[in-house]
Amino acid sequence: MLEQLKQQVLEANLALPHYGLVTFTWGNVSTIDRQQGLVVIKPSGVSYEQMQRDDMVVVELESGRVVEGAKRPSSDTDTHRALYLAWPDIGGIVHTHSRHATIWAQAGRDIPAWGTTHADDFYGAVPCTRKMTDAEIKERYEWETGQVIIETLRDREIDPLAIPAVLVNSHGPFCWGKSADDAVHSAVVLEEVAYMGIFSQQLAPELPVMQQTLLDKHYLRKHGAGAYYGQK
Amino acid sequence: MLEQLKQQVLEANLALPHYGLVTFTWGNVSTIDRQQGLVVIKPSGVSYEQMQRDDMVVVELESGRVVEGAKRPSSDTDTHRALYLAWPDIGGIVHTHSRHATIWAQAGRDIPAWGTTHADDFYGAVPCTRKMTDAEIKERYEWETGQVIIETLRDREIDPLAIPAVLVNSHGPFCWGKSADDAVHSAVVLEEVAYMGIFSQQLAPELPVMQQTLLDKHYLRKHGAGAYYGQK
Amino acid sequence: MLEQLKQQVLEANLALPHYGLVTFTWGNVSTIDRQQGLVVIKPSGVSYEQMQRDDMVVVELESGRVVEGAKRPSSDTDTHRALYLAWPDIGGIVHTHSRHATIWAQAGRDIPAWGTTHADDFYGAVPCTRKMTDAEIKERYEWETGQVIIETLRDREIDPLAIPAVLVNSHGPFCWGKSADDAVHSAVVLEEVAYMGIFSQQLAPELPVMQQTLLDKHYLRKHGAGAYYGQK
Amino acid sequence: MLEQLKQQVLEANLALPHYGLVTFTWGNVSTIDRQQGLVVIKPSGVSYEQMQRDDMVVVELESGRVVEGAKRPSSDTDTHRALYLAWPDIGGIVHTHSRHATIWAQAGRDIPAWGTTHADDFYGAVPCTRKMTDAEIKERYEWETGQVIIETLRDREIDPLAIPAVLVNSHGPFCWGKSADDAVHSAVVLEEVAYMGIFSQQLAPELPVMQQTLLDKHYLRKHGAGAYYGQK
Repeated sequence: MLEQLKQQVLEANLALPHYGLVTFTWGNVSTIDRQQGLVVIKPSGVSYEQMQRDDMVVVELESGRVVEGAKRPSSDTDTHRALYLAWPDIGGIVHTHSRHATIWAQAGRDIPAWGTTHADDFYGAVPCTRKMTDAEIKERYEWETGQVIIETLRDREIDPLAIPAVLVNSHGPFCWGKSADDAVHSAVVLEEVAYMGIFSQQLAPELPVMQQTLLDKHYLRKHGAGAYYGQK
Repeated sequence: MLEQLKQQVLEANLALPHYGLVTFTWGNVSTIDRQQGLVVIKPSGVSYEQMQRDDMVVVELESGRVVEGAKRPSSDTDTHRALYLAWPDIGGIVHTHSRHATIWAQAGRDIPAWGTTHADDFYGAVPCTRKMTDAEIKERYEWETGQVIIETLRDREIDPLAIPAVLVNSHGPFCWGKSADDAVHSAVVLEEVAYMGIFSQQLAPELPVMQQTLLDKHYLRKHGAGAYYGQK
Repeated sequence: MLEQLKQQVLEANLALPHYGLVTFTWGNVSTIDRQQGLVVIKPSGVSYEQMQRDDMVVVELESGRVVEGAKRPSSDTDTHRALYLAWPDIGGIVHTHSRHATIWAQAGRDIPAWGTTHADDFYGAVPCTRKMTDAEIKERYEWETGQVIIETLRDREIDPLAIPAVLVNSHGPFCWGKSADDAVHSAVVLEEVAYMGIFSQQLAPELPVMQQTLLDKHYLRKHGAGAYYGQK
Repeated sequence: MLEQLKQQVLEANLALPHYGLVTFTWGNVSTIDRQQGLVVIKPSGVSYEQMQRDDMVVVELESGRVVEGAKRPSSDTDTHRALYLAWPDIGGIVHTHSRHATIWAQAGRDIPAWGTTHADDFYGAVPCTRKMTDAEIKERYEWETGQVIIETLRDREIDPLAIPAVLVNSHGPFCWGKSADDAVHSAVVLEEVAYMGIFSQQLAPELPVMQQTLLDKHYLRKHGAGAYYGQK
């Protein structure tokens, strides 16, 4: 069972350089076995070229203790744990420093819903968190990063599966989904809309958000009860 | 006969990732058999890596009914049908979310004719449609998308084969031509001029459109009666 | 002898897609046999994938008459001839619509010398021509394009081998050099400095041109009598 | 021993085109054998495709005299020597004209620390030097380039290993590290943050530098005494 999850996590991690989302080792993907309460995550600082299935690290969801794997887990493991603990419906998480999503994070700005590419996968603006406090940064930084993400979605009343991405202020994006694959999908779409948003605003500095009706239409034709996009 | 069209449509669809115009499955190409009144179009949400000739779906032009193919046709099929019905001279249609054309669509702006790259294939500004009404979005959305495109060209008195592209407001480009290949060609050129337009305007914020004489010269040396570009 | 030149021209043309300077068939390279008064140039509208050595067309410098080759020469052949006739020291010419050089051409602006990358190969700003007159566009357009380029360098007292590139207003770059290879080199460098110039100006809107001393130093350490860059 | 260093220098040089940091021959990497006082550096103007281990040139640190190698050393060798002489702890140097770092250099601006991507490897803004004086440019230009770099870090009280990169005004970046590999790593990160900085500022024109606490956290979790990023 965990061998399958390790393989999924490996493949999802390898998808990040494939889609041009990472430089060096700047990204990580995890998935979770909810029944056993175990998170499978990329090791810290290992190059994508050399990564093997058995390098994936298994960590207890509750404690963060490594229960399998010879390598250290990603330094962001506690952020992943915090999100899995807060949101029982998600099954995969991705963190990258992909260029254009990171640009919005550095600028400390939400990415507004400015077109159907956005609406197809994000049901509203992708939020940017507040800056973290000195105390949050100094103590249990990675865990607190997760808490700030959770606070951001809660305060804005966002369903994590309706807008499966966030920008951590001055840092970069975290994305998630029902599986590791879904989380990678969100990361790719986020980078796409982040890029387009920069230059849409350049062309139209006062650009209002898209019509709610159009946002509804595109999001719901893919994700709603009556979805009719794709096969089946 | 339809096997040939399916092969053409498959190849034209595969040209989209080749030219860097699509991410995931965000694009579709169709062609038409005018005599039989049949449209051949990409299936919905199938990855380009796995797509086979026999995945292409055959749809009746008039009714939209699927007459061949095991898969659902592209969710944008009704937009394609609307254009084929309105414009008897076109033989292929492409829809993408290519980055820079989509940026102009999101900004709700026409792409002005700012140079000979544009003039070689588009005989004037590439228009952006008005926003769709709530009623248009809620009922028969894809069909109404086609109607708004048709309205845009009609109101501006544009010959669809002289400017074979449009930007759907808050959405992205649709392109067309005498064949599926021609439509792909238009989509590539559109992305090129969309990119260059963003930064031409950055360098020259009050940039006027190019001289009409130069627009005529370039368009007509490739497309006019006395064309002398290319072989034959 | 001409077989060698055809091979050189073929390889120089193929270098254009290699360096990402062309889309479709939007570029052409030529070279010249000064003794025989013959220009060897790419055929018009032939794809780079299919181009063969024997597709290259041989044209008389003085008359423009095709003396060898089954295909039509590039539609820009008369521009090439005009430059070869005006400037006896050049041995190769390249025309592209490379994105960033074309952006400056569309904006109708010179590319200032803003750094040593520029100074290494261009001894001053790369000039943009004036717009062509209606008469020039309507009659012998390609020949007149050459004349406007020649006028631009003459009026600004530019030695064509010291600044081996020009931007044709509303159109795109022409580059040249002692050989077809040198011309391709200029086209690559031009694209590089065109890209960097757009964003250098974005970061520093009132950016002055670089110091003359530094321009001298870099240009002359590669191209002056006492050059010491490279081998020998 | 030197064969090993030559191989390292060759591989580090080949990493530059791999990471998209160089066009043509516009980059060079060196390393140093501190015990023997010998610098191993790329030859001048040799293409990356053809470069062999034994093309690397060995130069005396103190005198600049070539002691091994049939080719001329990089024209920037004296800049490398100046830095090695000033900073005994560095073991590798890279110079490139990578697009976005060069854009900041041309604009004459420091790259502020605007996010954790920056903080992970640069402990503060990457400084841009003052312009060089005419005298510095005219006499021993490459050596004086090194002196201006050294002056910049000294005047700002920067530890070269804490911010292993500089922008030479109107020119481009120099990067360094404990080894040639580390220097290449810095060059890649610099290009990344240079790109993101341009557009972060576009989105937030008055963007303040990141919080000192966050800068500390990210830099020190990778580089401090208690580092916990990566394996071991």
